[in-house]
Amino acid sequence: MKFGGTSVADVDRIRNVAAHVAREVKAGNEVAVVVSAMAGETNRLVALCREAAPLHDAREYDAVVSSGENVTSGLLAIVLQTMGIEARSWQGWQIPMRTNEAHGAARIADIDGSQIIERFGRGQVAVIAGFQGLSPLNRISTLGRGGSDTTAVALAAALKADRCDIYTDVDGVYTTDPRIVKSARRLPQISHEEMLEMASLGAKVLHVRSVELAMLYEVPLMVCSSFADPAVTPPGTLITGENIDMEAETVTSIAYSRDEAQVTLRDVPDAPGVAHRVFGPLADANINVDMIVQNISDDGSTTDITFTVPQSEFDRAMATLEEQRETIRFAKLLGDTDVVKVSVIGVGMRSHAGVAATAFKALGERSINIRAITTSEIKISVLIDSAYTELAVRTLHSVYGLDKVAH
Amino acid sequence: MKFGGTSVADVDRIRNVAAHVAREVKAGNEVAVVVSAMAGETNRLVALCREAAPLHDAREYDAVVSSGENVTSGLLAIVLQTMGIEARSWQGWQIPMRTNEAHGAARIADIDGSQIIERFGRGQVAVIAGFQGLSPLNRISTLGRGGSDTTAVALAAALKADRCDIYTDVDGVYTTDPRIVKSARRLPQISHEEMLEMASLGAKVLHVRSVELAMLYEVPLMVCSSFADPAVTPPGTLITGENIDMEAETVTSIAYSRDEAQVTLRDVPDAPGVAHRVFGPLADANINVDMIVQNISDDGSTTDITFTVPQSEFDRAMATLEEQRETIRFAKLLGDTDVVKVSVIGVGMRSHAGVAATAFKALGERSINIRAITTSEIKISVLIDSAYTELAVRTLHSVYGLDKVAH
Repeated sequence: MKFGGTSVADVDRIRNVAAHVAREVKAGNEVAVVVSAMAGETNRLVALCREAAPLHDAREYDAVVSSGENVTSGLLAIVLQTMGIEARSWQGWQIPMRTNEAHGAARIADIDGSQIIERFGRGQVAVIAGFQGLSPLNRISTLGRGGSDTTAVALAAALKADRCDIYTDVDGVYTTDPRIVKSARRLPQISHEEMLEMASLGAKVLHVRSVELAMLYEVPLMVCSSFADPAVTPPGTLITGENIDMEAETVTSIAYSRDEAQVTLRDVPDAPGVAHRVFGPLADANINVDMIVQNISDDGSTTDITFTVPQSEFDRAMATLEEQRETIRFAKLLGDTDVVKVSVIGVGMRSHAGVAATAFKALGERSINIRAITTSEIKISVLIDSAYTELAVRTLHSVYGLDKVAH
Repeated sequence: MKFGGTSVADVDRIRNVAAHVAREVKAGNEVAVVVSAMAGETNRLVALCREAAPLHDAREYDAVVSSGENVTSGLLAIVLQTMGIEARSWQGWQIPMRTNEAHGAARIADIDGSQIIERFGRGQVAVIAGFQGLSPLNRISTLGRGGSDTTAVALAAALKADRCDIYTDVDGVYTTDPRIVKSARRLPQISHEEMLEMASLGAKVLHVRSVELAMLYEVPLMVCSSFADPAVTPPGTLITGENIDMEAETVTSIAYSRDEAQVTLRDVPDAPGVAHRVFGPLADANINVDMIVQNISDDGSTTDITFTVPQSEFDRAMATLEEQRETIRFAKLLGDTDVVKVSVIGVGMRSHAGVAATAFKALGERSINIRAITTSEIKISVLIDSAYTELAVRTLHSVYGLDKVAH
């Protein structure tokens, strides 16, 4: 069970978390609980480090910011004990949860679950400080933002847990953003792959890394709300290996990402190596490129190249390409940040033809112009003008039959 | 060097601490710095534990409250680095500073200073989170309030330091409380024993345990102010082995303690074992007894027994004795909390006669009634009505020649 910062924001909320844990213990489960710092606490500690020095030693930063989780894990253990549940807190170095040396964004290398498992045998609940580990040089490391999700999934894998329940402030994963589509439905179940696509597209429910890890180690994830009545098992979305339900719908969700910027190079001489000349410098500048589209001109001598980058990297991307004007020899460099990427996601696409055509037809009927298209085995993404975001999402949600059935 | 909570209250104050450290480093010293939590932080964490449960697991309490020092040690290391001084933070478990299992009030068992000494050789400053250690079961322990002073002294002993400098919000140890006696002088130097008597009497400059430890391991302590100009070595009081100055004054200071309550048993049958019948039950109840005085009655058949207890234990002491009325067979049980203990302290008393007589005469001349007297080799304490506190302190300060010489 993993509880984030808003779920442990104060002692009353921690009591509520303890009630969720108590329910699982009473149901006969062996439980490890991973907790984040109290809401706002990590930001406060980060601000202190920045005040101490804008550029600070990542090892000291980790020593400072990891303390937020130490507090919450101790407090939850205390509250559980008052409820008659045997519990103890574990800091990363005590488990130990070993990481690499990349302080501030460390990756988990190895978790020794033996002490925790041994104490399960004595009926003890393990309360784990999330987000932190032990570096090879015996120093505290942190896993970067969202690290507590990663802690929970990695620990679930190490303990060979039946399930990893991520308690958050929403009650599951929806067919699309309910703020845009009123008829959006909570999905009872989706696959790791689908969740990974949704997380990559900016769905805030889970962090990409934790979903990747869950997929790799085949850890079933449950996303549910810590604000639900702790007396009963809360509803949620189970994220697990695919092919659970052969009758599953072709498309499970519609996602969108506003963090996109379009870059177009017009009339680039179409010679071997052109792609490398364009994308090599961008890679060197550490700029993530997505949705690459290339069109040959009428006479075949030049080509247009369009791609997207995150909005935060747009200015650097434009500058980097401008510097390479002589090498790439493009006629024009165009950019647009007023775009959005809308994606249709579903593992069922693998076995169903015509899924993409349905999307293109529906968007066309609404006069929504498609600027670029990319597809994967389980996803179709289109880049459109951001003004059409809501219309496109609603149209696709409806055309794939995802709207809530009226009762 | 040790800095308390007010000395590290915010990042600006931490920068000031770093300037003090830099001065010592530039002077060619190898430096270990022990820091407390930012002022108010430990209280905040203690309050969270109490809110979680009034009676909480001391091991979890330690895991929670120790985090305050983790934050300060990391921040000071960051600030030192920005000043071009190589530094790293150490938490108790990293050194390791091993303690016993008495969580919440642990005693230091063993400090491995080898890693810190090895890094001294590379010019690195060690920044140590005070107040915390590692228990035998690999859990975090804390040393109790004032524990950072103890950390500093124990570490100084383990590192065979030349000196342990305690930076605080006063600039040294005074001949008496300057709030009562305007002409009180800062003492340039006193002995461990004298400081121990003063700390035991409630002088807040240093905690009893840290002075005991400094005496045991012969660690010279310097008490000075962190608010002094960090560019120059601050003035202070050096606390060290006695007999440094054979010409030293007989009396070095006048201390007082308001935390006293008087208990008197009237007309107790004077039979063998009476002292045990009185003080046995008090010891069993864990009540500290001080200043015991016994007077035989005129006919020698009964005795009066007077002693003091801390005010916080007065009610329990009275109740405990009332329960033993049948066993002790006293005629009357009297109590008074309106008393104060005033003490004259000085190692020079050992070689000077008549020191006590001087005090009794001076107090008598002021019509101050003495309720009880105890003496040790280096201290004379009298119990008096609390209304006379200031008058008694001023009188004694003057009669032993401690008043500041006018220039």
